[in-house]
Amino acid sequence: MVPAAIEVLTAAAAKCGFVLEFRHFDWSCQTYLKTGKMMPDDGLDRLRDHDAVFLGAVGFPGVPDHISLWGLLLPIRREFEQYVNLRPVRLLPGIASPLRDKAPGDIDFWVVRENSEGEYSQIGGRTGTGENEIVVQQAIFTRRGTDRILRYAFDFARRSGRRHVTSATKSNGLYHSMPFWDERFAAIGAEYPDVAADQYHVDILAARFVISPERFNVVVGSNLFGDILSDLGPGITGTIAVAPSANLNPERRFPSMFEPVHGSAPDIAGQGIANPIGQIWSGAMMLEHLGEDEAAALVMRALEASLIAPDIEKTPDLGGNGTTAGFAEAIRTKLLG
Amino acid sequence: MVPAAIEVLTAAAAKCGFVLEFRHFDWSCQTYLKTGKMMPDDGLDRLRDHDAVFLGAVGFPGVPDHISLWGLLLPIRREFEQYVNLRPVRLLPGIASPLRDKAPGDIDFWVVRENSEGEYSQIGGRTGTGENEIVVQQAIFTRRGTDRILRYAFDFARRSGRRHVTSATKSNGLYHSMPFWDERFAAIGAEYPDVAADQYHVDILAARFVISPERFNVVVGSNLFGDILSDLGPGITGTIAVAPSANLNPERRFPSMFEPVHGSAPDIAGQGIANPIGQIWSGAMMLEHLGEDEAAALVMRALEASLIAPDIEKTPDLGGNGTTAGFAEAIRTKLLG
Ligand SMILES: CC(C)[C@H](C(=O)O)[C@@H](O)C(=O)O
Ligand SMILES: CC(C)[C@H](C(=O)O)[C@@H](O)C(=O)O
Repeated sequence: MVPAAIEVLTAAAAKCGFVLEFRHFDWSCQTYLKTGKMMPDDGLDRLRDHDAVFLGAVGFPGVPDHISLWGLLLPIRREFEQYVNLRPVRLLPGIASPLRDKAPGDIDFWVVRENSEGEYSQIGGRTGTGENEIVVQQAIFTRRGTDRILRYAFDFARRSGRRHVTSATKSNGLYHSMPFWDERFAAIGAEYPDVAADQYHVDILAARFVISPERFNVVVGSNLFGDILSDLGPGITGTIAVAPSANLNPERRFPSMFEPVHGSAPDIAGQGIANPIGQIWSGAMMLEHLGEDEAAALVMRALEASLIAPDIEKTPDLGGNGTTAGFAEAIRTKLLG
Repeated sequence: MVPAAIEVLTAAAAKCGFVLEFRHFDWSCQTYLKTGKMMPDDGLDRLRDHDAVFLGAVGFPGVPDHISLWGLLLPIRREFEQYVNLRPVRLLPGIASPLRDKAPGDIDFWVVRENSEGEYSQIGGRTGTGENEIVVQQAIFTRRGTDRILRYAFDFARRSGRRHVTSATKSNGLYHSMPFWDERFAAIGAEYPDVAADQYHVDILAARFVISPERFNVVVGSNLFGDILSDLGPGITGTIAVAPSANLNPERRFPSMFEPVHGSAPDIAGQGIANPIGQIWSGAMMLEHLGEDEAAALVMRALEASLIAPDIEKTPDLGGNGTTAGFAEAIRTKLLG
């Protein structure tokens, strides 16, 4: 999928008169099976001087997920302080929502997910054996980490003209972390009197994504809650195979990373029929991050036009018979045409 | 809502020739505002000798949720080892699903939620001040607690003839707790060769509730994941205001507790227009738990018939102009008729 998406991005760059230079690193579960490591010891250093990382979906049967992800994706997010995971929840033309009576425009919001701390932590462990075993998993919320993601959400809401931030909480059940989160949400929100703020417990919030998605503009959540909500979002827009994500270091001290939301889909791996749109849309977010707004807009227009073009063969997940390469090539042609 | 539901249950009991004896305890956020306690110090002891607890929705503006819930609901669940939270996800006749093209029968599964440990823990706290503050929230999974909920799920699947259990996990992100959960799911599942087992990460599972709810029979999850999924379930069936839950001590050493899934809806509190169905349906689950299957079935039939009866005025959430008392009375009349 990555090579197919690169073709599209390269075409957009050419049309806008700049050059994208890619360096390829073959770090994957296959690498792990051969070397015992997802990436070389100096992997993070090798990435450090790039402007952005364009990542494909990670995962392979036989490699436990917590190995493949804590060996590649999660260290990159952390080392490069990509503390924002930004994901659009947008109903695209040509893709049917599983929700009744929704048309493009009805569902159009953003999930801003904390991406560097919180529930995803390696602190904890097991003690006791057999019947007596106990497992502890710690979630760590720092004031710095919490404030910066909340501030990003409010800034983003202000910048994008969508002046409404909704916080995902669970302060009625999670005794320490979420009351703290609520406190900080109230404190940071007070700095943005021009942005409306409200909050829901994550359980009812998930239900509201289904019942009244129109009411959301920017939804901010912890690492785990943001993860769940930003898969549920593509669920309600029918775009699980299509949704993109940006792992951002907003200060640009380190490279940001762009990847599709979907997993590596081992059931169809190697068949060449996976939908390339998540990867391409992620590429458009990358172009925007690099300051190439015009190229990003070109890609998005070509992508949306291709989704409703009757003569373009789509991949099987969209009901077509097309291949990854064929569908991406059609998008590229549309972009150039 | 509780008094209205009790009328219906009492009528069912009378029709089946037994008597339900209720003792009323006025423990609530109002009690807290007066006494500083949600329930008296010997509250749990006063409940201990009953066959079941029939609880209304808890919560009130001005009382922080983590106070009201850790002072009443959560201690009851724990002290009485109500380690199973059982919730139907069922599309009822007369209630529209927000999902396209779904009819009663299409969505009909159960969420089995761990209800006594896991992510809901008071262990943890804050350290550091100001900019340096750090908050730790621990999740504690015991082998005993994990095994018993998984075993309940498989037993339930076998008993109900729905021989398919799906586990909610997040072992790709939560480093210690969820790989352990997966291990135990595999181990317990091996004891039930006649029950199919599969698992999904909770993010994609949430999306699948929306995309393909038909495929689920019994979904088992940790305290937090079960909480989210068992609100999302009522979300996809349009029954947020209607869904029931059972907090079960399967060994019957302690009373089990029955309560609606919805919260106390402070926006309409005191207006007498809240939908009583969640409370009544919870009552039906209570009757079943007490061994009164016939009475439970009577209640459910009356309830379902009332939902599609054109001459019965429903509450505003269902598009009617009825009151809590009026709607409950109509169900009672239908039951007796
Ligand atoms: C009120 C809250 C603590 C509770 C929970 O999360 O357990 C509720 O959401 C529920 O599902 O019963
Ligand atoms: C693969 C997994 C660790 C990851 C996450 O939970 O962060 C994924 O679900 C995502 O959302 O990027």
